[in-house]
Amino acid sequence: MSYQAPVRDQLFILREVLDIDRYASLPAFADAAMDVVEQILEEASKLASEVLAPLNVVGDKQGCVWRSDNTVTAPAGFKAAYDTFVAGGWPALSADPDYGGQGLPAVVSLAVSEMTSAANMAFAMYPGLSHGAYAAIRNGGSQAQKDIYLPKMAAGTWTGTMNLTEPHCGTDLGLLRTKAVPQGDGTYRISGQKIWISAGEHDLSENIIHLVLARIEGAPAGVRGISLFIVPKFIPDAHGQPGVRNGVKCLGLEEKMGIHGNATCVMSHEDSVGWLVGEENQGLRLMFVMMNEARIGVGVQGLAQGHAAYQAAVEFARERLQGRSLTGPKNPEGPADPILVHPDVRRMLMDSRAVLEGGRAFILWTGLQGDLMHASPDEAVRTKAADYMALLTPVVKAFLTDRGFKACSDAVQVHGGSGFTEHFPVSQYLRDCRISMIYEGTNGVQALDLVGRKLAADGGRGVMTFFAEVDAFVAAHQGDETLAVFTAGLGSAKAQLQDATLWLMQNGLANPDNAGAASSDYLQLFGLTALAYMWAMMAKAAQAKVAAGDVDPFYANKLIVGRYYVERILPEAASHLAKLKTGAAPVMALAADAF
Amino acid sequence: MSYQAPVRDQLFILREVLDIDRYASLPAFADAAMDVVEQILEEASKLASEVLAPLNVVGDKQGCVWRSDNTVTAPAGFKAAYDTFVAGGWPALSADPDYGGQGLPAVVSLAVSEMTSAANMAFAMYPGLSHGAYAAIRNGGSQAQKDIYLPKMAAGTWTGTMNLTEPHCGTDLGLLRTKAVPQGDGTYRISGQKIWISAGEHDLSENIIHLVLARIEGAPAGVRGISLFIVPKFIPDAHGQPGVRNGVKCLGLEEKMGIHGNATCVMSHEDSVGWLVGEENQGLRLMFVMMNEARIGVGVQGLAQGHAAYQAAVEFARERLQGRSLTGPKNPEGPADPILVHPDVRRMLMDSRAVLEGGRAFILWTGLQGDLMHASPDEAVRTKAADYMALLTPVVKAFLTDRGFKACSDAVQVHGGSGFTEHFPVSQYLRDCRISMIYEGTNGVQALDLVGRKLAADGGRGVMTFFAEVDAFVAAHQGDETLAVFTAGLGSAKAQLQDATLWLMQNGLANPDNAGAASSDYLQLFGLTALAYMWAMMAKAAQAKVAAGDVDPFYANKLIVGRYYVERILPEAASHLAKLKTGAAPVMALAADAF
Repeated sequence: MSYQAPVRDQLFILREVLDIDRYASLPAFADAAMDVVEQILEEASKLASEVLAPLNVVGDKQGCVWRSDNTVTAPAGFKAAYDTFVAGGWPALSADPDYGGQGLPAVVSLAVSEMTSAANMAFAMYPGLSHGAYAAIRNGGSQAQKDIYLPKMAAGTWTGTMNLTEPHCGTDLGLLRTKAVPQGDGTYRISGQKIWISAGEHDLSENIIHLVLARIEGAPAGVRGISLFIVPKFIPDAHGQPGVRNGVKCLGLEEKMGIHGNATCVMSHEDSVGWLVGEENQGLRLMFVMMNEARIGVGVQGLAQGHAAYQAAVEFARERLQGRSLTGPKNPEGPADPILVHPDVRRMLMDSRAVLEGGRAFILWTGLQGDLMHASPDEAVRTKAADYMALLTPVVKAFLTDRGFKACSDAVQVHGGSGFTEHFPVSQYLRDCRISMIYEGTNGVQALDLVGRKLAADGGRGVMTFFAEVDAFVAAHQGDETLAVFTAGLGSAKAQLQDATLWLMQNGLANPDNAGAASSDYLQLFGLTALAYMWAMMAKAAQAKVAAGDVDPFYANKLIVGRYYVERILPEAASHLAKLKTGAAPVMALAADAF
Repeated sequence: MSYQAPVRDQLFILREVLDIDRYASLPAFADAAMDVVEQILEEASKLASEVLAPLNVVGDKQGCVWRSDNTVTAPAGFKAAYDTFVAGGWPALSADPDYGGQGLPAVVSLAVSEMTSAANMAFAMYPGLSHGAYAAIRNGGSQAQKDIYLPKMAAGTWTGTMNLTEPHCGTDLGLLRTKAVPQGDGTYRISGQKIWISAGEHDLSENIIHLVLARIEGAPAGVRGISLFIVPKFIPDAHGQPGVRNGVKCLGLEEKMGIHGNATCVMSHEDSVGWLVGEENQGLRLMFVMMNEARIGVGVQGLAQGHAAYQAAVEFARERLQGRSLTGPKNPEGPADPILVHPDVRRMLMDSRAVLEGGRAFILWTGLQGDLMHASPDEAVRTKAADYMALLTPVVKAFLTDRGFKACSDAVQVHGGSGFTEHFPVSQYLRDCRISMIYEGTNGVQALDLVGRKLAADGGRGVMTFFAEVDAFVAAHQGDETLAVFTAGLGSAKAQLQDATLWLMQNGLANPDNAGAASSDYLQLFGLTALAYMWAMMAKAAQAKVAAGDVDPFYANKLIVGRYYVERILPEAASHLAKLKTGAAPVMALAADAF
């Protein structure tokens, strides 16, 4: 059985938990009535399982091929699949209608992204990277730039990349050396080497638009001297068609643990012609536009790979007959019981499922904030949504990739020895998923972003609003016995998160290393609490159906999985709180030369 | 920098914590005075870093090659390294002196195993598998069998394997179908297919001795009808030299996530000639002799890979310059600080170090029990040691492989994007290490062995003795302020483990699924407590030196790392306790068809 997209679960979240039809009056949502969304998700599901999933193993085994003429060939079938993807209009889904997009809300396109990323993460990264590049041009580009690039990128005819990292500088972009020399005609000549450029060169699209960070000659050192440039592989001619080949070249591909189907390129700029996006030395701000978009997308990858791995593990656990149930044979006619009867196998599957279903709601809920922060006519709603997006982006990225990787590893474990072989899909999920904890800012960088920047922004407004929202939910359902386990769990997690937040406020300023040492545990605690809130909301929606006599087992099962989350996952919160409160001392005590 | 063996740390444990010189009067220890052991470990360290470590990447990239004549060629350099290994007498280290062995205690050979497994896990498995096969023959073989096989295996001229798994049966050996037909001349003809046979075929040794589980024609179904056979690749002739080629063949190799340098074989027995080891239908008992030996060895692999990965991460963290310390530049002359200054990088390194140093002590302490259970003249000591070995083998195996894998994953994380490429060693450590959580009984099987079999054995004598020993330690150091953090941490962990044990006794019998659902968390809690005890003992030894004015920073650092363990790792105990006490209900509530 190939990957089956979680359409039912996504529809439940969009329709019954988030109720997106209530936003029908907002521009992005006008064409996103739930019946339309349902059709879109059904179509995306077919694309994912019929077109993309069958190519996942091919991509892993073949990888991409670099040739000495600096071209790169994607694995067999990728080009045809990309053509199908483009013909279906998928790249345009959430793109701006002014430039050929369909203008659907991000919350819908994130649901689609989960499917494509689960079916074939390496493939999904080709159009995925375009999103960030598109967002940067749309946000900071001139009208002429928008007119030239956005329609092609929305159509998928052209794809995009982010050219940030250099051999000596990844996280610390202030060190970057790529040079831009103004030519006096509005163009710049860009020179330097970039590494780890995903989708940097390939044969899927007729043009590749690189968004390149570089330092204009004479610009200040550090991050204040960084500018962002458009460097197209083929320079658009007067008709907007791919023209002269630019001086940007792929010098080779990285050999990697996973995502072999995506070309991770060493890119050389040798007097590439580039166009400044926005203003000089303002590149970092625009880079973060791309980056934040990408970070949510990476959180989606963690969820997606974890879920695909979970499905494979369930299938294996149903089919593999080994041993007998501790409570007596469940398959007495057979030589043994399916391993799904064993509690420890169930523990792994339930761990994954409880976190992944909560994580799916968390991504869609956060995605909705991203829509509201642009689309809502109400300034208070926009502000709150923007605060949430800023605050929660690092949590979505790091928490869901950590947990997605754990789900992949647990899926390998359910497979036993089979999971370590390459005859089953789970080894690839594990290897592919591992990068999600690293790129677009390692999970440690996310944690530092959360405690060092996001928490304190605007006097802590975002986190206070979040606490107040959670408190209000708990208060509103205090007397409801059917939700007691959820409100109790949520209340307790939130209290611990608030305690940790207070500790950070009191200790982080006195010694910034306290904040650094606490950051990853704080982020985990935040993620656990956010998912507890998602589960409380989902339980409320499911409970309402059950109470109304709905016999669809979906709802009863949702409550079972949610209870598992509260009882068997949330206890981790206390451990993170205890750890982070020990502060910097134990973490920093060892002399550097004693490691 | 290549792998550096932890000789200093091992000597500290052997000399100052375990004080093995006090056993000098026992046979196995007679030739293992600490000054001799020190020389052995220094030699092993050279072997590991100079001979084995340089071949680790070669093994990963080249893998083994299967040929249509059913031969397998190990990666380039492996044969020469194996010759060096044999010439150095390493296979004989802990082998029986009656058969050409050096008769050293297991506690010493485990220290050596850590080095070889860290330097090159795939290589170390070739001689490693021989240990188990050797132990089975020594334990259950006839005098003639011992005379023929043990000297060759101790010398390393011949290697051994375990032929257990079949395509439809791994954990559940009762299902096995390989057939043995008695020939009336003391031999049997063995037919069937075995899979995942590590080191099943290769070009390192002149003969390969397969220990094969099979069912004698007419034997009872299930595990009571399984017998163990010796099936040599070449049948020894009258002079004990390799003679006629037997009917056991390698049909192919598995494609795997890691340990590419070790041949994981599909073995076909086509009327192989085999000799029964021990009695008919008693194969499972002897299999467990091999298996228990192998399980401790797998725990060593987890520790070893984790430690090699930790070292690589430290080296990277020293050299990679990126960002500035939160408390001001530490490398003001350079373009940025080494990432070792960042608290979150330190957190990952300290997490690994605290668990790995504790784990190293745990393995050697357990290994010493293995020696004492044979060598002590005191029956009470032998009984206690045997109880501990039985009880703790699953904990050593599962806890240390889980934690070793986490250390590998954290080492990848410290490397950032570099860790995902194959240009740095950590991807291989992660991929190689992953199998250790699976083979020789998955970690879930270990947990079930612990709660279902080992805990209750002899009325719980083993675990009670362990609790009493820990209580005595805590009581004896109650007033010692310098050890207060360690005794408090140990006391608290032990109290939680005891609480969990009581819960299991009360709830596991009523519903065995309670025990199954609790098993993995219980094992983790046991591992955390065992390491707390190891750290308390190490802290005592280190504190004694510090108090005596020893200025070697090794001791002060040991106390720092130990405190980190108590403050930042032990808080996980409470989370495992809370989870396991929820019992089977949340784990088993979902209907099988709802997954």
